[in-house]
Amino acid sequence: MAEVLLVGVGAGDPEQLTLQAIRAIERADVFLVIGKDGAAAELETARRDLLSAHRPEPARVVVVPDPARDRDPQDYRQAVLDWHAARAGRLAAAMEGEPDGTVAAILVWGDPALYDSTIRVVGDVAATHPVLRWSVIPAVSSVSALAAAHRTVLNSIGGAVHITTGRRLRQGWPGADIDSVVVMLDPDLACAALDPAGLEIFWGANLGTPGEVLAAGPLADTLPEIRRLRDGVRADRGWVMDVYLLRRV
Amino acid sequence: MAEVLLVGVGAGDPEQLTLQAIRAIERADVFLVIGKDGAAAELETARRDLLSAHRPEPARVVVVPDPARDRDPQDYRQAVLDWHAARAGRLAAAMEGEPDGTVAAILVWGDPALYDSTIRVVGDVAATHPVLRWSVIPAVSSVSALAAAHRTVLNSIGGAVHITTGRRLRQGWPGADIDSVVVMLDPDLACAALDPAGLEIFWGANLGTPGEVLAAGPLADTLPEIRRLRDGVRADRGWVMDVYLLRRV
Repeated sequence: MAEVLLVGVGAGDPEQLTLQAIRAIERADVFLVIGKDGAAAELETARRDLLSAHRPEPARVVVVPDPARDRDPQDYRQAVLDWHAARAGRLAAAMEGEPDGTVAAILVWGDPALYDSTIRVVGDVAATHPVLRWSVIPAVSSVSALAAAHRTVLNSIGGAVHITTGRRLRQGWPGADIDSVVVMLDPDLACAALDPAGLEIFWGANLGTPGEVLAAGPLADTLPEIRRLRDGVRADRGWVMDVYLLRRV
Repeated sequence: MAEVLLVGVGAGDPEQLTLQAIRAIERADVFLVIGKDGAAAELETARRDLLSAHRPEPARVVVVPDPARDRDPQDYRQAVLDWHAARAGRLAAAMEGEPDGTVAAILVWGDPALYDSTIRVVGDVAATHPVLRWSVIPAVSSVSALAAAHRTVLNSIGGAVHITTGRRLRQGWPGADIDSVVVMLDPDLACAALDPAGLEIFWGANLGTPGEVLAAGPLADTLPEIRRLRDGVRADRGWVMDVYLLRRV
């Protein structure tokens, strides 16, 4: 194995692929698919469509099954680290089976730099396999796709943008000085527990895919519509992945 | 005038253009260039190269000169609002001179949703010109490009990512609970005034362009190298635009 290309492919819209990502897809000898089990059928189809759109000949795909993960651990950080180590071991084993000189690509939805483990996992493999060359191709994040879909700016004038998780938002608004908060990894709409006074929401699910839905407005007024749209997308598409911006007005 | 396409073109690497941005460049009848005065010659050349790479015939370009801006105002927010209003007026005047049905494109470096005024300015114009259709095409932000160049993730495991400005960072570290801070719009390296103990920096300037430079390491040890690289890029290229991630280790 010579090289791993960690390729960000954007939030879901095949038109939001970069030229750099396309060159990588063209160059790769093999595609490593991590953790296929449980992935939504629509996303699997979208991944296959990306490959067939940009490959002259059918691509070889090797599935690296995910290790089991403790979803409700006592120590969240340690559980994630253990899971990364198990993933790295499986990925290393898959790569050791490839002939020398192979260029492998791993496609990552969204931007690999935000709440995705692939950079850490490949970095772990590279640490124990010094001959491995690897690089990261950035992508349009779901955060950028959300803002564009709503034609809004993430920051207030001169203000900060705080990107956080549903798990953290459950502890409350992240700081008195912060007026723009982007929330990811939030299957339970943690924003519903905030005092909604003076907050507006810009929400989107399944961005850039056929199931894309958007909603925006004052938080309290908009939440019922968001719940309805969310349930509808999950029922129609078999999966829902959302992100939202909360802004103090 | 029928339509304005606000096209994010990424941090600088022409390979980081999306297919959606390329389609927009192909479709546009005219390119509105806002605020050409003072733009670096290298960026002007890069913009022209983007157009010539993706246009079958030469593109028509209309320059909308920037209004004067108070760079050291008493009321920062009001000064920015006044400047947006003046920009919107000039942009509206330029667009009113175009025949009906024209598709205009405005190219924006980086992602239009982060610390860029174009969305607000075009939104202001659209508010007074209801017939105007407009859309935003997201891009790879300089933040994503920075993380990819350093092959690092922005967030710690389960942690938040706080994106802020040099102006704000001068008031200190943004919060005890925050361990990852991205700093933009910081010509004076405000991080130099922080207590560097336990902080590492991932820095990049002129990302994706021929002058790209990177540096990473413990904050105190790395700052002298960053200053040297920064001065070198400015001297060699005539401009420097940088972004960095600070992380508590």
